[in-house]
Amino acid sequence: MPATAYTQLCDHVREVALLSSMESTLSWDQETYMPAKALSYRARQMSWLSGKAHAMATGRMMQKLIQQAQAARLPSEAMSRNVRVMAEDFERNARIPNRLVVEESELTAHAKHAWAEARRTSDFSLFAPHLEKLLGIARKKTDLWGYADEPYDALLHTYERGTRTREVAELFARLKPELTRTARAAVEKSKSVKPNLLRGRYPVEKQKQLNAEIAASIGFDFGAGRIDTTAHPFCTTLGPRDVRLTTRYDESDFTSSLFGVLHEAGHGLYELGLPEEDFGLPSGRACSLGIHESQSRLWENHVGRSRAFWQRWLPRAAEFFPHLKKLSLDDFLAAIHRSEYSFIRVEADEATYDLHILLRFDIERRLVSGTLAVKDVQEAWNALFAELFGMTPPDAARGCLQDIHWSMGGLGYFATYTLGNLNAAQLFASARRQKRIATAIDAADYGPLLAWLREKVHAQGGDPLPGEIMRHATGKTTDASHHLRHLHTRFVA
Amino acid sequence: MPATAYTQLCDHVREVALLSSMESTLSWDQETYMPAKALSYRARQMSWLSGKAHAMATGRMMQKLIQQAQAARLPSEAMSRNVRVMAEDFERNARIPNRLVVEESELTAHAKHAWAEARRTSDFSLFAPHLEKLLGIARKKTDLWGYADEPYDALLHTYERGTRTREVAELFARLKPELTRTARAAVEKSKSVKPNLLRGRYPVEKQKQLNAEIAASIGFDFGAGRIDTTAHPFCTTLGPRDVRLTTRYDESDFTSSLFGVLHEAGHGLYELGLPEEDFGLPSGRACSLGIHESQSRLWENHVGRSRAFWQRWLPRAAEFFPHLKKLSLDDFLAAIHRSEYSFIRVEADEATYDLHILLRFDIERRLVSGTLAVKDVQEAWNALFAELFGMTPPDAARGCLQDIHWSMGGLGYFATYTLGNLNAAQLFASARRQKRIATAIDAADYGPLLAWLREKVHAQGGDPLPGEIMRHATGKTTDASHHLRHLHTRFVA
Repeated sequence: MPATAYTQLCDHVREVALLSSMESTLSWDQETYMPAKALSYRARQMSWLSGKAHAMATGRMMQKLIQQAQAARLPSEAMSRNVRVMAEDFERNARIPNRLVVEESELTAHAKHAWAEARRTSDFSLFAPHLEKLLGIARKKTDLWGYADEPYDALLHTYERGTRTREVAELFARLKPELTRTARAAVEKSKSVKPNLLRGRYPVEKQKQLNAEIAASIGFDFGAGRIDTTAHPFCTTLGPRDVRLTTRYDESDFTSSLFGVLHEAGHGLYELGLPEEDFGLPSGRACSLGIHESQSRLWENHVGRSRAFWQRWLPRAAEFFPHLKKLSLDDFLAAIHRSEYSFIRVEADEATYDLHILLRFDIERRLVSGTLAVKDVQEAWNALFAELFGMTPPDAARGCLQDIHWSMGGLGYFATYTLGNLNAAQLFASARRQKRIATAIDAADYGPLLAWLREKVHAQGGDPLPGEIMRHATGKTTDASHHLRHLHTRFVA
Repeated sequence: MPATAYTQLCDHVREVALLSSMESTLSWDQETYMPAKALSYRARQMSWLSGKAHAMATGRMMQKLIQQAQAARLPSEAMSRNVRVMAEDFERNARIPNRLVVEESELTAHAKHAWAEARRTSDFSLFAPHLEKLLGIARKKTDLWGYADEPYDALLHTYERGTRTREVAELFARLKPELTRTARAAVEKSKSVKPNLLRGRYPVEKQKQLNAEIAASIGFDFGAGRIDTTAHPFCTTLGPRDVRLTTRYDESDFTSSLFGVLHEAGHGLYELGLPEEDFGLPSGRACSLGIHESQSRLWENHVGRSRAFWQRWLPRAAEFFPHLKKLSLDDFLAAIHRSEYSFIRVEADEATYDLHILLRFDIERRLVSGTLAVKDVQEAWNALFAELFGMTPPDAARGCLQDIHWSMGGLGYFATYTLGNLNAAQLFASARRQKRIATAIDAADYGPLLAWLREKVHAQGGDPLPGEIMRHATGKTTDASHHLRHLHTRFVA
């Protein structure tokens, strides 16, 4: 009975996903509602779950079930693909000894605190020794995993399966002059836009109502998700029909929480569009971070910052916030398309965002290859920042200490933000090639667009490689031209 | 090394508590924030946890650890008591096969939603099949546990360790004429009180602020707990420093949410007063529901509905709700001491509340003994209600569908509410016998009262029997005279 070996393997993998989903639920609660003194017990609950999940995902039983399924003649290609990806995951996980997992988890617990303190006091030397250790662990992992060209490949693979560092480096090198030019032109052009066009009071309760209305209108199902408030917005999946978004509110600018919601709702729509019955299996999970980010960026930027969108929603927003009635659609669009160089990535606009990523990718790659020493990170960061932005971060907090990623061991992650931007523009352009979809988009009706994304991207699950998803949806692997054209049209032309 | 066997046993039992605490966290989320479509996956998460906890609490390892600890010479009586209770728990749990636990957990997840829908549409037939199944499980459990006089004993023991159905039935039979008389007199007397003295608009946000201020003032620590909104108020413990209360809001009556908060905060203060370092062990858990309810009732009724309390808080409430300024303290007290027959237990005032319990105890006892069929519950309920209250529930939502308990498998639970009322009056009277405490109470300063409760009740943990706690704190086991005297003073005299 070939199905039996496969079913047993799937049951096991689904149980690991069940444990991880509980950990996600506890983590969501920790970020949203948990009282402060509950922290230490919560940490014990979560480490129990992650320990158990790791043990199940890397244990003898898992190995046996994979071998049985590999030996069986499976009746469908979909099953074979799932087994192939599960075997790859297992191989990868099993190469990391448990003591390294424990060591990393202890290190990151300390590193996160050190990073927060270093950022608070803007003192990179407080964080440097921790980064050194985390880098050491990352290098050990790349040695254990193995890699084709350079160690960074193995880290990138964690987030963007099958993508090579060299490809990304070449892509980014080609993009750099064009992105730098576009950013400069956008910033220059924005100087004629009055800076405080949207200034006013936006009560949080009204922002929540408008955000919910808009999220529902693009297809986010509040029967299978919700929006809460946190200091740092995120989207997390607690089960196949349970996606939690968060945002933060600025009472002087309603677009801050709204674009946050559109971004996270883009992630959420992807998660809710994955094959529900395959939850926990490769075929039921997201493909890569570069594909995930394409969904958030598409809804945030290509939909949420478009003229058609605001033609529909500005009048509605003005019902919640009456002072907006004085603003023309053109003025409003000029305000939300205003571009400005910022030291901080998460505050950057579309036209300047990718420069922040190019910088981080370059620094990380050199760190991992050993051509940049940890002690020289701040200097290298500032030099590269000056080259790209024409200004120098006034302190480390607004420079190399601004992101939490390294303190969590997340080396190899940043490139996926720009890959997401490129994929978003490419997918949006492909969808628009269908007249029916373009007409609907121009009328701020996003049903056909979402249906297209569900079929072409979401329903594909996570067993194809990112490039395969892009080729299936658009006929080509990731191609930067759409993103560049989009930026040029919106910010320069 | 005698301590080793004991320590190993405690580690194991604490791990079971860790799993249960995760289940509580998922359950809290289900009641407060979880989107509706997440239900079925949530049910799987929770049944995994309860199955695992049950397996650990009833497995060979547990048995071996208990036997080792029993064989060891333990250096303290406290340790011996813990081992004794753990062994009792083990005996009881081990008799329930794992598949029955899993079955019950899955059933209740669905039954809770069916109950909500049945209550919404006031259609008992939607809930009856679920109740039938849950009753079947309860009966199976009583058979497996065994019992002295009748199956209901085994259920009652779950909530009120060591208490017999017959004792409670006799106590309730003795109370019935007095309680009926007091209720009638209170209702009669209240007819002279204008019914809408408190009428006004009470915005939810302001209620939340006032409630939080009052909860903090009686000692509830918002660093270790919070208050959320649910249809049915509850208190649940997610960890040694994590207690979650809920209440519901009536915009035309602020006292409804406030008394809910005082009640649940009473439970919460008990949980937070238990020995933190013994979390998960018998010595670190609550004694019984009848003791638990004594804490909620004490804070809700003996503190929260007293003249001294409102002497302090009415002026503050009037700052939030200015129309209250017109009301004298006497009028306000008359309003909150107004007694009225109500169809709904949770809306019932002190003078009529216990009649609701006598009714439920009788119905449940007959259901469990098999002398009442599920299909006849509504009729039996209405008949008994008419006997006790002189009126008939107009529909099932205001009759046998009003309580969530059965949908959670909570048969055998209700009697503990009246036991709690009796214990509350008795504990409050004992505390007041100390002049220093009485003087503070009369000045609405509850620090000394809370300190007394912490020492006499909370710190005792859960290894003594309820009667032992009461004797330790008051010199006597549960004694109805204090409660009857309290009701008479407040409502009749």
